[in-house]
Amino acid sequence: MDQVRVIEIKQSVFAANDKQAEELRKELKEKGIFLLNLMSSPGAGKTTTLRATIAALKDEFKIGVMEADIDSDVDAKRIAETGAKAIQLHTGGMCHLDAGMTRQGLEGLGTDDVELAILENVGNLVCPAEFDTGASKNAMILSVPEGEDKPLKYPLMFSVCDVVLINKIDVLPYFDFDLEKCKEYIHMRNPNATIIPVCAKTGEGIDVWADWLRTEINNWKRN
Amino acid sequence: MDQVRVIEIKQSVFAANDKQAEELRKELKEKGIFLLNLMSSPGAGKTTTLRATIAALKDEFKIGVMEADIDSDVDAKRIAETGAKAIQLHTGGMCHLDAGMTRQGLEGLGTDDVELAILENVGNLVCPAEFDTGASKNAMILSVPEGEDKPLKYPLMFSVCDVVLINKIDVLPYFDFDLEKCKEYIHMRNPNATIIPVCAKTGEGIDVWADWLRTEINNWKRN
Repeated sequence: MDQVRVIEIKQSVFAANDKQAEELRKELKEKGIFLLNLMSSPGAGKTTTLRATIAALKDEFKIGVMEADIDSDVDAKRIAETGAKAIQLHTGGMCHLDAGMTRQGLEGLGTDDVELAILENVGNLVCPAEFDTGASKNAMILSVPEGEDKPLKYPLMFSVCDVVLINKIDVLPYFDFDLEKCKEYIHMRNPNATIIPVCAKTGEGIDVWADWLRTEINNWKRN
Repeated sequence: MDQVRVIEIKQSVFAANDKQAEELRKELKEKGIFLLNLMSSPGAGKTTTLRATIAALKDEFKIGVMEADIDSDVDAKRIAETGAKAIQLHTGGMCHLDAGMTRQGLEGLGTDDVELAILENVGNLVCPAEFDTGASKNAMILSVPEGEDKPLKYPLMFSVCDVVLINKIDVLPYFDFDLEKCKEYIHMRNPNATIIPVCAKTGEGIDVWADWLRTEINNWKRN
């Protein structure tokens, strides 16, 4: 397999992240690029979910993926295997991406041929929630082995996401995970969050998630 | 069950965290208090592992536990059920604890009757690794569902830990997790790390972990 490109991104020198995020969002709208910011704990299944998402939507949208990590390029390689355009972003130890870093990533990726750009943020339930990346929508994955109490402990992450995928539902029989309780806790933090149980590995629920994303993109295009 | 106490801790105003950490470590040594800093991703099983650890060592050491979270007090309640002294620390959104915050936590806990103090850090594989808390030893938990590639993506966390517990080995049959590869990746980041596979839920391997901790505490007392 070919080597994937790796970009070393630097923390934004501009303090006004919210302003930069709004500008980026506006620019992307003008260019017709829908940006999805995908967040989760380490190992919740972001990359596997993205592979399944690409398989479901690649005939409808031209997709480009930015994989952010402190080190390694294993995720970008896994995405490149799907045939989608992929780039690895190295954050230089940084625990999150802000709008300036996301802009650097998009420039590195090249967006002339991209309609759906996906940012896989650093695996972290705390810091990424604090920085608007300029994304059109925020999504997060909570995996069954992490436990249903996470919305109680990491409130902001659940508050800022439009959709929460509950991943690894294939292992529900082996964990003490109360799905209904989890939904209740998520809605306590964010009454408007859409919740979609999935198993990225087996594909279960990915059609529902792909429908949600397709609908959001098409609504966004019309507005 | 009684309500557990919750302390709202504030970020240290002092920049020189390393200096503060050294001072705290020295003070704790003089008082004979061994401080263990336990880190992991969200949901890797820190609290369940601590409950098993307390059960294994409570007759040998007087144990006090500080549970750090952004919100909720579910973890401190679960620790208090074991009979160990426990306090919940709220970080006010902060993604990690530094030495000044740890000192506030120890003061809140009260250490006159404590020989083994355990700090359960915020669930996060990035930021906690960057701040010396003043602990005698750093431990981390990597759980099987997170995948064996985490040392490649979160290098610093694995570099700063003296011991890595690989938790949830009861679910190894249901995940693509290569234990030998994981050990290889950990030792790539940290050749001196002790690696102990455990299942905190069933108790498997907890005797090995308790032996490690007992030996470290006793060696520390002699030095």
